[in-house]
Amino acid sequence: MRIAVDGMGGDNAPHAVVEGAIYAAKEYPVDILLLGPKEILEKELKKHKQPFSKKIEIFHAPSVVDMHDSPTISIRKKKDSSINIGLELLKNKEVDAFISAGNTGAVVCSAIFNLGALPGIERPGIAIVIPTLVGFTLLIDVGANIDPKPIHLLHYALMGNTYSKYILGKQNPAIGLLSVGEEETKGTDFIKETHKLLNTTNFNFIGNVEGRDIFTGKADVIVCDGFVGNVVLKVSEGLADTIATLLKRELRKSIITKTGALLSQGAFRALAKETDYSEYGGAPLLGVDGACFISHGSSCSKAMKNAIRIAADFTKHRINEKIISEAKECQGVIDSEKATLNNIGE
Amino acid sequence: MRIAVDGMGGDNAPHAVVEGAIYAAKEYPVDILLLGPKEILEKELKKHKQPFSKKIEIFHAPSVVDMHDSPTISIRKKKDSSINIGLELLKNKEVDAFISAGNTGAVVCSAIFNLGALPGIERPGIAIVIPTLVGFTLLIDVGANIDPKPIHLLHYALMGNTYSKYILGKQNPAIGLLSVGEEETKGTDFIKETHKLLNTTNFNFIGNVEGRDIFTGKADVIVCDGFVGNVVLKVSEGLADTIATLLKRELRKSIITKTGALLSQGAFRALAKETDYSEYGGAPLLGVDGACFISHGSSCSKAMKNAIRIAADFTKHRINEKIISEAKECQGVIDSEKATLNNIGE
Repeated sequence: MRIAVDGMGGDNAPHAVVEGAIYAAKEYPVDILLLGPKEILEKELKKHKQPFSKKIEIFHAPSVVDMHDSPTISIRKKKDSSINIGLELLKNKEVDAFISAGNTGAVVCSAIFNLGALPGIERPGIAIVIPTLVGFTLLIDVGANIDPKPIHLLHYALMGNTYSKYILGKQNPAIGLLSVGEEETKGTDFIKETHKLLNTTNFNFIGNVEGRDIFTGKADVIVCDGFVGNVVLKVSEGLADTIATLLKRELRKSIITKTGALLSQGAFRALAKETDYSEYGGAPLLGVDGACFISHGSSCSKAMKNAIRIAADFTKHRINEKIISEAKECQGVIDSEKATLNNIGE
Repeated sequence: MRIAVDGMGGDNAPHAVVEGAIYAAKEYPVDILLLGPKEILEKELKKHKQPFSKKIEIFHAPSVVDMHDSPTISIRKKKDSSINIGLELLKNKEVDAFISAGNTGAVVCSAIFNLGALPGIERPGIAIVIPTLVGFTLLIDVGANIDPKPIHLLHYALMGNTYSKYILGKQNPAIGLLSVGEEETKGTDFIKETHKLLNTTNFNFIGNVEGRDIFTGKADVIVCDGFVGNVVLKVSEGLADTIATLLKRELRKSIITKTGALLSQGAFRALAKETDYSEYGGAPLLGVDGACFISHGSSCSKAMKNAIRIAADFTKHRINEKIISEAKECQGVIDSEKATLNNIGE
């Protein structure tokens, strides 16, 4: 298995990416193609004593998309960037998966342009794994598609269901629709229509869930539009950081609380580990015809290593083939529902 | 000044409401009208030794809207509920303000029905005060209007600006529009159109803000649609609770971390105080023709007391009159912008 990794993506690139690639090459049965300016990546690789040289190869991609480049400009003007070249290699089946911690918009745009959508899926969505009181929940979409139609959310449910089953190991994932109240009458017209559509499927659809349910683990998969999902993701990150900052500020104020903090640090560390998203280091862009993963911009080497593991898992379990077959089956159910309704109408 | 308080609203009613009313009557120059079934409220009042009997009066409202009643049914079938009677008294100027910690949907619906909108304002919005790294931010709307038009968000900015100035003491409030990126090109068509509209005003509009900026205090007022705002509110509450639960769970695991927690408790308490929303105990429903406040369902007596203080402040500062005059001025600016654009077009 051969996985392409954007050597220049993320705040800690190339260091964290190269180190993560080395760890992954050591632990997993994968070959890695590092994309980016050759000299920079060679220099970075040389810093590490590593006997895995055969498993890590550099593929020269001279230009670099930075975090402020607009997605369309990055496709048009930086054709030879690590992002575009990586996704071209994926399109041409020269690699099995592509991972980037770089500019999310540029990755999504280039992935749609190069790979296209899976048969039966209209629009891709980014799925992230969120730590909860009882394990992990998958939230989809967190920003690939900010103005979706109900059918797109049905496809998110379908893809989230498959991903949750095979990658996160949930038996019969409970699927929730993010809304402002549990009753099916709550929410915008868009939400009500999506609710009806999800009711026609064979999924384990548990109805609407509210913002507060995300972290209790009430649902295994939560679907929402990309605007709301992106806000949820950033609000959660912002709030967690703010609580940590405020607590540190208070703990430093006296010698007693400082001592208390020192004694408690085992608990703080355990909490940090328990809620560590870097364990699930890459968010799949589900729905494109290829295995494309987006890592957090501030990914450390561990997050990159884990993203490579997840990408390998995704490829091994042939997730995209399963999604295509699920989509066919699901469309069949919807069509027969429609036919029944039409018959009743006649 | 006379303030009507829903004696039966919230998870801790009537106890917390009655206690909060007693504290408020003691501290502030207000008379309080407690609404609800007479016997229940009389019994509750009798539990307290209180020399403020002249300042607290009971107004009999036999039926009670519970948290699961639909807003429209609560208006039609429970006309003599504490919520409906309270808002009728406000409409007839028999009281200066109304506060409820009960069913939010029922309060909003009854307030719109009884009070109507302020001249120049199309739709009301609920504004909540959120603790940040550097003081407080006002988020509007968190659920009164889940499918608004851009002009409604302009009105939220206008009302938030006035509230922030006179109630929260901000000089020239920085106003942000919640979106998925800072650039004005980011977001849905609805967001882009709202952005343009806010740019035409004389407010201190700082552009788009992201979910993570809410808790850094980047903006003093953040406007969003009621669906997104409601999700943000509930996600924030849910996440804060989850972090606290997980941390407690970890701290209890060993004698060392337990001791640490004991020593650190001063810091935990200070943090809880610093971020205590009960200090700002009531969220104004801005835009209706009357002073209507919605308190959190789990309000304690302190939150109810503070809601009464805020409602008195709101009345004293004649916030609604200021909003009406701001709305006139703002409409003038928009009209002259339009006229200019039309002239250029000719």
